[in-house]
Amino acid sequence: MSLYLEDLQVGARFTSREMRVEEAAIREFAQQFDPQPFHLDHAAGAATLFGGLVASGWHTAAMTMRLLVDGGLPFAGGLIGMGANIEWPKPTRAGDVLHVVSEILAVVPSRSRPDRGSVKIRSRTLNQRGEAVQIAETKVLAMRRPSPG
Amino acid sequence: MSLYLEDLQVGARFTSREMRVEEAAIREFAQQFDPQPFHLDHAAGAATLFGGLVASGWHTAAMTMRLLVDGGLPFAGGLIGMGANIEWPKPTRAGDVLHVVSEILAVVPSRSRPDRGSVKIRSRTLNQRGEAVQIAETKVLAMRRPSPG
Repeated sequence: MSLYLEDLQVGARFTSREMRVEEAAIREFAQQFDPQPFHLDHAAGAATLFGGLVASGWHTAAMTMRLLVDGGLPFAGGLIGMGANIEWPKPTRAGDVLHVVSEILAVVPSRSRPDRGSVKIRSRTLNQRGEAVQIAETKVLAMRRPSPG
Repeated sequence: MSLYLEDLQVGARFTSREMRVEEAAIREFAQQFDPQPFHLDHAAGAATLFGGLVASGWHTAAMTMRLLVDGGLPFAGGLIGMGANIEWPKPTRAGDVLHVVSEILAVVPSRSRPDRGSVKIRSRTLNQRGEAVQIAETKVLAMRRPSPG
């Protein structure tokens, strides 16, 4: 399945595969990009408002992208985002199993470039209890189906 | 330097250290989180609107966080974000040298929790030509200075 601009309808929903979040992956991401104690160590996390080790929000964002690229949003030509509005209502913890449910909010053909448009999407990243660990509204490029010949 | 809520003034600016973006790091992040051809391969990128290999926007976001944690935003108790509004006006490319300039937009003491507040910040991630590769508005937790005794 490879979706073009004209295939996308407001209200359409897409569901990704699942991904289990390993503790080692939380620490590894944090060491590289967000080396704060509550992303690296249980005891340090327990002393904070998180009450334990939690993933960096940017790690949750990156894992969400992986789930979208792996079939969660099967756009022709790939997923090229122009921006995003993100919230993290709850933290991601080791052992969580995440999946992403995306909904098309708007489809906007380009006025200047007739071969493309932009699509506004809300992607909710849910854990195994159905709690949202991330809600992102993104604007993604979508290409129109090439005309034959 | 470790800043508390009462130290933060609207308009105050903070500048991070610099980080050089290696091609291997772009590919490594992409393999893990955003395995699309234009983040993995020069030739594949050359055939797209990017005209070459570019970093995932989420990689730019993650590197920005690293620069902020490494002194770019020296908040007491760390950097705990509640959300972010991100744009990527230009892609990050191999060899780019990034730094982040952050400006305090608003300081909002909490009504319900007198020991803390939230701070709205605009962080611009700039390359070696001064071009913004990311503009992010974030809402970050800030703690009030503990009273002595």
